[in-house]
Amino acid sequence: MQTEPSSEFIQSLARGLDVITAFSAERPEMTLSDVAQATGLTRASARRFLLTLTTLGYMQTDGRLFSLTPHVLRLGFSYLSALSLPDVARPHLERLSQRLGESTSASVLDGDDIVYVARVPVRRIMAVGITIGTRFPAVTTSMGRVLLAALPPAETDAAIEHSPQIDRDAVRRAVADAGTQGWCIVDQELEVGLRSAAAPLRRAGSVVGAINVSTSTATTTLERLRDEFVPALVETAAAISSDLERTGS
Amino acid sequence: MQTEPSSEFIQSLARGLDVITAFSAERPEMTLSDVAQATGLTRASARRFLLTLTTLGYMQTDGRLFSLTPHVLRLGFSYLSALSLPDVARPHLERLSQRLGESTSASVLDGDDIVYVARVPVRRIMAVGITIGTRFPAVTTSMGRVLLAALPPAETDAAIEHSPQIDRDAVRRAVADAGTQGWCIVDQELEVGLRSAAAPLRRAGSVVGAINVSTSTATTTLERLRDEFVPALVETAAAISSDLERTGS
Repeated sequence: MQTEPSSEFIQSLARGLDVITAFSAERPEMTLSDVAQATGLTRASARRFLLTLTTLGYMQTDGRLFSLTPHVLRLGFSYLSALSLPDVARPHLERLSQRLGESTSASVLDGDDIVYVARVPVRRIMAVGITIGTRFPAVTTSMGRVLLAALPPAETDAAIEHSPQIDRDAVRRAVADAGTQGWCIVDQELEVGLRSAAAPLRRAGSVVGAINVSTSTATTTLERLRDEFVPALVETAAAISSDLERTGS
Repeated sequence: MQTEPSSEFIQSLARGLDVITAFSAERPEMTLSDVAQATGLTRASARRFLLTLTTLGYMQTDGRLFSLTPHVLRLGFSYLSALSLPDVARPHLERLSQRLGESTSASVLDGDDIVYVARVPVRRIMAVGITIGTRFPAVTTSMGRVLLAALPPAETDAAIEHSPQIDRDAVRRAVADAGTQGWCIVDQELEVGLRSAAAPLRRAGSVVGAINVSTSTATTTLERLRDEFVPALVETAAAISSDLERTGS
């Protein structure tokens, strides 16, 4: 929860949104008690929020278990449909994915997180469960580091300071290198066996997002990622940035 | 707005969600007055909701124009990440799309609408702006008609009765045919030049979603859609349904 700045803050809206975000892949269905526990609401209060969301069509229940309905997608997609970046990036990502035989993605920065807004997955035996809306801490990812590199220095520092359990000096250096090079590689820091490269997307000179290609240590050496994948990625990022100049929001 | 069933209904949560859904591709940025007008709130009230959403990180403003932030995706993806259907369907849709050279999609029913939950787009000069979360009235679409065909008759009738500006008898026949055949074609009813075919996805005998392939009158005759695309689509739907049997929610 955030701090409330004034008496104008509508507490029940904040709490209702907390009830929605309490549901996830790990907890797709919850009882009233589960929701009360997950949100810190009393049972009586959690019950009122759940019934209100059910009446509005955002929630369904069999009397005991509550779960979200596809109606909830209206909320997230009010944002996504207003964003031109995914539509512009997608055909370029498809070609890059086909050329390299690997999954490609685009993301934007949301506070200290990156959020996926487009993804072209490649089928593998061990699929990584990433979809539009998936988020990771920016500091740990290649896309996050190229995005952080474009922030004012005080904001970059703040994002790094917020993050627990990272080698802050190493991340600071990696972010600085990403800014200088115009691309970034993260090798098995987020997950053993996973390596990825990212490059920034620009519009009117400002960084507005990032794209990446992810691969595994089993299929791609670090040298090949740097010498073959990174140039293709940087070229794709430039083509998307060029297309973005011609679009609106 | 829905009717309020009891004193337990939390009006300010309903209004806050209305403020979020007032933003769209057509209105990605709005002033306080725009929001008040779009939601039916007073300016003073709209201001409190906008400031609360800004404090919570769901909204941003330059002082005059308000717009949603990627934080809003958290809400929609609480639902989407809990749903296994898109992950199961995607690789099958990719193969079908490659085989036919056309865009393929999966959707679920939400009240009287279908909502896209997976999509494999094919690049065309005239791209149709459909993405995950896009919705259309079920009655007008091929996926909607196969989904309506699986509802209890009273619910199918209600959805058709709710819909303005359609030929109700023709839609009733098309939905009945979709149920009998196990697939459905819609030819230029939603948009001139656009034709599509759909087939239902089943789990444990129940219809849980639909897939489609969409094409244009310029590239695909109605005969080819029926004789070549529909069998491939039905085969893909059966393969996805078979995979769904082996997954959870």
